[in-house]
Amino acid sequence: MSLFDRKKMEYVGNQAGLKAGNGFHYYNPDEVIHGKKMSEWLKFSVAYWHTMDQRLVDPFGDGTAQRPWDNIKDPMEQALAKVDYMFDFLDKMNIEYFAFHDRDLAPEGETLRETNANLDKVVDKIVEKMKETGKKVLWNTSSLFTNPRFVAGGATAPFADILAYSAAQIKHSLEIAKRVNSRNYVFWGGREGYESLLNTDMKLEQDHIAKFFRMAKDYANEIGYTGQFLLEPKPKEPTSHQYDTDAATTIAFLKTYGLDKDFKLNLEGNHAYLAGHTYEHEVRVARDAGLLGSLDANMGDKLIGWDIDEFPNDVMEATLVMYEMLKNGGLPTGGLNFDAKPRRQSFTMEDLFLAHTAGMDTYAAGLRVAAKLLEDHVLDSVIEDRYSSFKSGIGADFENGKVDFTDFENYIIDKPQSELIAATKSGHLEQLKATINNYMFTVLGK
Amino acid sequence: MSLFDRKKMEYVGNQAGLKAGNGFHYYNPDEVIHGKKMSEWLKFSVAYWHTMDQRLVDPFGDGTAQRPWDNIKDPMEQALAKVDYMFDFLDKMNIEYFAFHDRDLAPEGETLRETNANLDKVVDKIVEKMKETGKKVLWNTSSLFTNPRFVAGGATAPFADILAYSAAQIKHSLEIAKRVNSRNYVFWGGREGYESLLNTDMKLEQDHIAKFFRMAKDYANEIGYTGQFLLEPKPKEPTSHQYDTDAATTIAFLKTYGLDKDFKLNLEGNHAYLAGHTYEHEVRVARDAGLLGSLDANMGDKLIGWDIDEFPNDVMEATLVMYEMLKNGGLPTGGLNFDAKPRRQSFTMEDLFLAHTAGMDTYAAGLRVAAKLLEDHVLDSVIEDRYSSFKSGIGADFENGKVDFTDFENYIIDKPQSELIAATKSGHLEQLKATINNYMFTVLGK
Amino acid sequence: MSLFDRKKMEYVGNQAGLKAGNGFHYYNPDEVIHGKKMSEWLKFSVAYWHTMDQRLVDPFGDGTAQRPWDNIKDPMEQALAKVDYMFDFLDKMNIEYFAFHDRDLAPEGETLRETNANLDKVVDKIVEKMKETGKKVLWNTSSLFTNPRFVAGGATAPFADILAYSAAQIKHSLEIAKRVNSRNYVFWGGREGYESLLNTDMKLEQDHIAKFFRMAKDYANEIGYTGQFLLEPKPKEPTSHQYDTDAATTIAFLKTYGLDKDFKLNLEGNHAYLAGHTYEHEVRVARDAGLLGSLDANMGDKLIGWDIDEFPNDVMEATLVMYEMLKNGGLPTGGLNFDAKPRRQSFTMEDLFLAHTAGMDTYAAGLRVAAKLLEDHVLDSVIEDRYSSFKSGIGADFENGKVDFTDFENYIIDKPQSELIAATKSGHLEQLKATINNYMFTVLGK
Amino acid sequence: MSLFDRKKMEYVGNQAGLKAGNGFHYYNPDEVIHGKKMSEWLKFSVAYWHTMDQRLVDPFGDGTAQRPWDNIKDPMEQALAKVDYMFDFLDKMNIEYFAFHDRDLAPEGETLRETNANLDKVVDKIVEKMKETGKKVLWNTSSLFTNPRFVAGGATAPFADILAYSAAQIKHSLEIAKRVNSRNYVFWGGREGYESLLNTDMKLEQDHIAKFFRMAKDYANEIGYTGQFLLEPKPKEPTSHQYDTDAATTIAFLKTYGLDKDFKLNLEGNHAYLAGHTYEHEVRVARDAGLLGSLDANMGDKLIGWDIDEFPNDVMEATLVMYEMLKNGGLPTGGLNFDAKPRRQSFTMEDLFLAHTAGMDTYAAGLRVAAKLLEDHVLDSVIEDRYSSFKSGIGADFENGKVDFTDFENYIIDKPQSELIAATKSGHLEQLKATINNYMFTVLGK
Ligand SMILES: [Co+2]
Ligand SMILES: [Co+2]
Ligand SMILES: [Co+2]
Ligand SMILES: [Co+2]
Ligand SMILES: [Co+2]
Ligand SMILES: [Co+2]
Ligand SMILES: [Co+2]
Ligand SMILES: [Co+2]
Repeated sequence: MSLFDRKKMEYVGNQAGLKAGNGFHYYNPDEVIHGKKMSEWLKFSVAYWHTMDQRLVDPFGDGTAQRPWDNIKDPMEQALAKVDYMFDFLDKMNIEYFAFHDRDLAPEGETLRETNANLDKVVDKIVEKMKETGKKVLWNTSSLFTNPRFVAGGATAPFADILAYSAAQIKHSLEIAKRVNSRNYVFWGGREGYESLLNTDMKLEQDHIAKFFRMAKDYANEIGYTGQFLLEPKPKEPTSHQYDTDAATTIAFLKTYGLDKDFKLNLEGNHAYLAGHTYEHEVRVARDAGLLGSLDANMGDKLIGWDIDEFPNDVMEATLVMYEMLKNGGLPTGGLNFDAKPRRQSFTMEDLFLAHTAGMDTYAAGLRVAAKLLEDHVLDSVIEDRYSSFKSGIGADFENGKVDFTDFENYIIDKPQSELIAATKSGHLEQLKATINNYMFTVLGK
Repeated sequence: MSLFDRKKMEYVGNQAGLKAGNGFHYYNPDEVIHGKKMSEWLKFSVAYWHTMDQRLVDPFGDGTAQRPWDNIKDPMEQALAKVDYMFDFLDKMNIEYFAFHDRDLAPEGETLRETNANLDKVVDKIVEKMKETGKKVLWNTSSLFTNPRFVAGGATAPFADILAYSAAQIKHSLEIAKRVNSRNYVFWGGREGYESLLNTDMKLEQDHIAKFFRMAKDYANEIGYTGQFLLEPKPKEPTSHQYDTDAATTIAFLKTYGLDKDFKLNLEGNHAYLAGHTYEHEVRVARDAGLLGSLDANMGDKLIGWDIDEFPNDVMEATLVMYEMLKNGGLPTGGLNFDAKPRRQSFTMEDLFLAHTAGMDTYAAGLRVAAKLLEDHVLDSVIEDRYSSFKSGIGADFENGKVDFTDFENYIIDKPQSELIAATKSGHLEQLKATINNYMFTVLGK
Repeated sequence: MSLFDRKKMEYVGNQAGLKAGNGFHYYNPDEVIHGKKMSEWLKFSVAYWHTMDQRLVDPFGDGTAQRPWDNIKDPMEQALAKVDYMFDFLDKMNIEYFAFHDRDLAPEGETLRETNANLDKVVDKIVEKMKETGKKVLWNTSSLFTNPRFVAGGATAPFADILAYSAAQIKHSLEIAKRVNSRNYVFWGGREGYESLLNTDMKLEQDHIAKFFRMAKDYANEIGYTGQFLLEPKPKEPTSHQYDTDAATTIAFLKTYGLDKDFKLNLEGNHAYLAGHTYEHEVRVARDAGLLGSLDANMGDKLIGWDIDEFPNDVMEATLVMYEMLKNGGLPTGGLNFDAKPRRQSFTMEDLFLAHTAGMDTYAAGLRVAAKLLEDHVLDSVIEDRYSSFKSGIGADFENGKVDFTDFENYIIDKPQSELIAATKSGHLEQLKATINNYMFTVLGK
Repeated sequence: MSLFDRKKMEYVGNQAGLKAGNGFHYYNPDEVIHGKKMSEWLKFSVAYWHTMDQRLVDPFGDGTAQRPWDNIKDPMEQALAKVDYMFDFLDKMNIEYFAFHDRDLAPEGETLRETNANLDKVVDKIVEKMKETGKKVLWNTSSLFTNPRFVAGGATAPFADILAYSAAQIKHSLEIAKRVNSRNYVFWGGREGYESLLNTDMKLEQDHIAKFFRMAKDYANEIGYTGQFLLEPKPKEPTSHQYDTDAATTIAFLKTYGLDKDFKLNLEGNHAYLAGHTYEHEVRVARDAGLLGSLDANMGDKLIGWDIDEFPNDVMEATLVMYEMLKNGGLPTGGLNFDAKPRRQSFTMEDLFLAHTAGMDTYAAGLRVAAKLLEDHVLDSVIEDRYSSFKSGIGADFENGKVDFTDFENYIIDKPQSELIAATKSGHLEQLKATINNYMFTVLGK
């Protein structure tokens, strides 16, 4: 059954003309790059909330999206129809994974029991379609931010009943995670933060959510759900300050509460900028901590102060993120989820195909460049040379714990300034950036 | 000996007219506020680098400062003369503490041995003046960022000789800390960060500096220096990314390397903004973690993207920071160091007096308002009411570990939306902010 | 008829206790300040879109607002009921003015004809209530941004039919402006900007909107509507770049197209920050250009990159804005419109009363302080002294056009650096800011 | 005479390996692109202040630059030696133009007369070298910001003597402009702005500088200097607010004071970001106004809040800026001046060669891509299609002034929403950006 009257997106390479949209120019799923198929490095995932549910609203305007299911007015009927569209979209786009919040799938009822019943009907259909098609769930999660009951958060809500509700909701989501064999279970703390410190007991709220996470893990263990738990940092929006501000802050939280063995990070490009970081910085922080879980592959606009969830088109950034990913040996349970939406003016269904194609090509292009940089040891040789003084002499003694401050003083106290300056080296950053530009153009332009 | 022809700054209160500068309007050192003298809550400190050394340069212009010691041309002679001026300034301003970098005090020589010799001459004089006057050192530190040898950092430099030099320099600074009985020893990682991730091994650099800190603590123990070690976060400037980005990031670092027992934080207002936080947020994060050490009491301009180190004049911000301080029971070893400089157009010596007076009054005013807010339980009663659902019923069961996710589900699964909404409460933030305004005007206006 | 079971908000002063909410602490409508009643200086206005229509949604959550008219399900019936509530709100709050977009008042129909019919029914009722109560319209405007047809703007839309629709819609709004005797007619260019420069002909779009504005003015003249036309700058949101970025940019536009005789500016606090300016800067720019029209009195959070439309609570900012207003001799046709909404957690109807009270008190407090600063010539005397060198000698010659570059050269060429430095003066900004703090506390605290 | 032991930088193309630095990969001076030689489109210019004078200081550290002239201690001797180095640098880099401030060239004396004498000696040598080599001056300017006498500005200083000095200094600079046949004369208002609005008479200061500019132009006319006058916008730094904030603000100023016939704009990439704009936006604004003068080709870091003056390496940005330049038919008197400095860690002389090479290649690459986009009508055809509804029917009637608001109402009043929505078109921005990526890689990768 084909719902979308559109041919499957295939690799066409650079020979297909310069106008984008006829196929993949850089993503060739079966091509082997750095020892693995591209499709194995790049576990692309469709974000249900954006691709299926996003109406392209903004705070100043109603939705502009035009979708084939718009005319189905009954909410449950529409919810079930969208499942078919989603699987056809995955098929047409040659994408293997998808991700969803519980509330993306089905409308709420008057009670959690009714809500769960609605949800289960849609999940039943999803499970069936997964069997049929072989498509997989990269991660699922639970929305503790949309409904007005979560006005002050879910697990950090100052209201015990809301925390109780949140726990019950997550419980069901974990059961679904097990049913759909979700690779990961994600917590994005949408309203787990504060609007104002004046009326917030931040420590109590963090104690609460840490205990809540522990209980969630216990429940996962209880039911035998073994997917990787992930936290997704974001500094602000919707709240003024969110507890999982950025990778480092989230690591501080995990370590403070002894949760760092059970959680890794899901990192999003646009969230990095909002926290004042580059995307590659956030990925590096997580990688260095052994906590790199998965990627929400989108981008923002550094001149814009809110989350725009744009489909990635910056190949240089994708290169640097893919470089981190390669250095990490891939993402064991993770993938590249398009937490991204077309611009509000790109309101046609066709734009959804074009936007995913552009995003996939951006990361495929980035992977190609990153793999070549790695193979040619471009950055590795720079690093090796730059830190070489720690391979012998006083540097090696320091690495091996053979010196103390007094030894250092004896070693250095009579060295003149000229020798000290001579011990420093230029970073040659202008040359290095130009070299990476050369790699990008040459790898992708042939 | 009086070098400055200016009367001592005394408390004059609000009766002295509205024009600032004739004395303190809010700082009354011996007045008891919330059970302690103001001078005990407010351990003000003069920052040697700004107050004595700052020429009021900026990246586009030469220094404009006009100081009585400008005509002393011999560097060592000037360095020694400035000690006298500094102690007279402390006296005239009624300030008990000061803080300094090693390089603030004396010029460098050709080798570290010569540099140390220069430094020791000035420290000798300082020790003598301290005995004479009773003035104290809030903290000292070491500059690993000014000299070109630190082009790529000190303890995180990619060059072993520079790391060795840094260790030797800190060694001497710790010896000075012991001599001057410094309450704290501060590390601000001026260039401990990266210019670009492309040529940086961030993990190696952080491993290095963690080991370096451990060695510093070992050396302090060896010589019997018992002051509190502090790290001062800042997100960027001079480097593109500094490792001690903000309080949470620094906590992540301390916990990752097991240094959280030996270090606390020194928090600066302007650095908070640069990291996207309010000053009170940073202080709260540290307080909640039991790591609130000391305060660099300055402010920035949230519309300006670099560190301006302005003297504090925002009494509302000072109120919120003093509130955190009171909640912390004060700052055991810490104080309020004016890491602040007059604007470049405020180039006269008199402006230095006026600027410190304004800064001291700002924090004294903030302390007065915060104490009254605390005494009237204004914020405490808001918090108590807001989180009251955790005092009984399901909330208390959660606090006491008596429930799991299944219990929560049973409890909540049939509650209708109307009951859930009824479980939430308004934060009444507009009213609360207006109330705090009322407190501020009433406490300070009488 | 009283719909809200709440006593009228009256002036209670500082004697009423410190907790906000029982009445006005600073706003005393009939009190004479600087020669005019406070109510004449402060023509407060309720913003229909926020106060009556705002559901307290955000991009991540549904509305939380709880309003007495929520249970009226028929859109037209609700629209008419809200008119009664609005007038009762004005009465209870002691506010004389209100402001609205066409689409705030009534639902759209299938065609503009139907939409106009809906709107006219509500306007009929408003006209009647205005007669009954004496309340007035500060300004009205037209929404060219909410409906999906305006996806790419209204008067700058690349689609002729949408421009035509916009013109027809504004036509009707101008007719309403005449009926309700609106003091001003405002254009906020919600989507009059670009999402991307790549597919935008900026010059053509600006030519279009300039011609459109000319036609709007012609139509106003045709029907005898004499209210002041205003443009409201905002730099971004919803579009990436909006044409009326800030006051200066809007002035450039007006002058380029010869529209500066027919338009003034409506300036909003939060929009100022988003453009990188203080609110007082924007007001000063407009005042200096003789183009200060009206104020959207709200505030933002300089650490947050989007428009939060918070009710004003920063009295220092209000002081500086009121100072500009006093210097302007008031706002001939303008007022202080609360383009502001309670925080999403302040969801009760009572919060709406409290929030407006807080906002009114903030500006009333600011007016009191500003008036005192003006009466005491605090800033005027600083300015006078600072620029005094232009009152005589070479400075006066310059002012009077009596010198040229050669005269200046002759005058200055042999002056030594010491004399030039002596010609400069300290700005004493630290002292000045402390003085203004003293004024604020003393004026408001008694 | 060859001072630098380095071979001349020549075009080597992509065949020379991927490591940057051996020559130009994209800049081929004599190659014809879009009808003109690359060297004619790209009038590259060396910025004397950065390339010759910049010590690579920052607010936290001393200069790290290592230059062959460092050992020449006598200021005038060094100043004269640097002229030789500069011309050799131009020769080695194959760059035709340079730009300078008066104070870049020679040290100040005690009086302006002495300063002018120093300067004239260096200018004499420059004039001679220009004759010898054929190198040209793109623009010169005058520093009214470095010396402490300019603490509060030059032409906007509140001190008449400083304004007089500024006039005299500019007078001499205009005489030099004539001598060196400078294509343009630039005014960057380094301190022409305010530190605080509290003590600033903004209108008076703008009146002053407008009159000052008029006098400068009069003097240029008097001496027969016919170069183009340019203003360079920057929003802040060093002052909190600079009058020439961005292109639009500067246009407002020029139009307000009737100076728009005599001035154009010099636009810098990093300054654009600081004002919240893209570089291409600023260039477009100037182009649309007919005021595009010249380009300071550098870049910044949108995550960093101050001016970093990085050498350009973002080829996508360069493409968009070169596209504007091509649409403008080139820059009649302007060029691409590298107002850029190597990173502080790139402290070797070799880095200066590498950095300029990288910057030149970035803009040469951008020119190549932009020319191909233009030749293929990629953006033009998007624009043409998007605005096509203004070519006929009601759209054309609007363009031709044949309709008024009543006509528009009659035309649209009964159109149903479905037809209005059908009148809008997707912007297909994701596809367009992907297409431009394809162009970039294909044009540059072959
Ligand atoms: Co995400
Ligand atoms: Co996002
Ligand atoms: Co500090
Ligand atoms: Co600072
Ligand atoms: Co507004
Ligand atoms: Co707004
Ligand atoms: Co420039
Ligand atoms: Co610049």
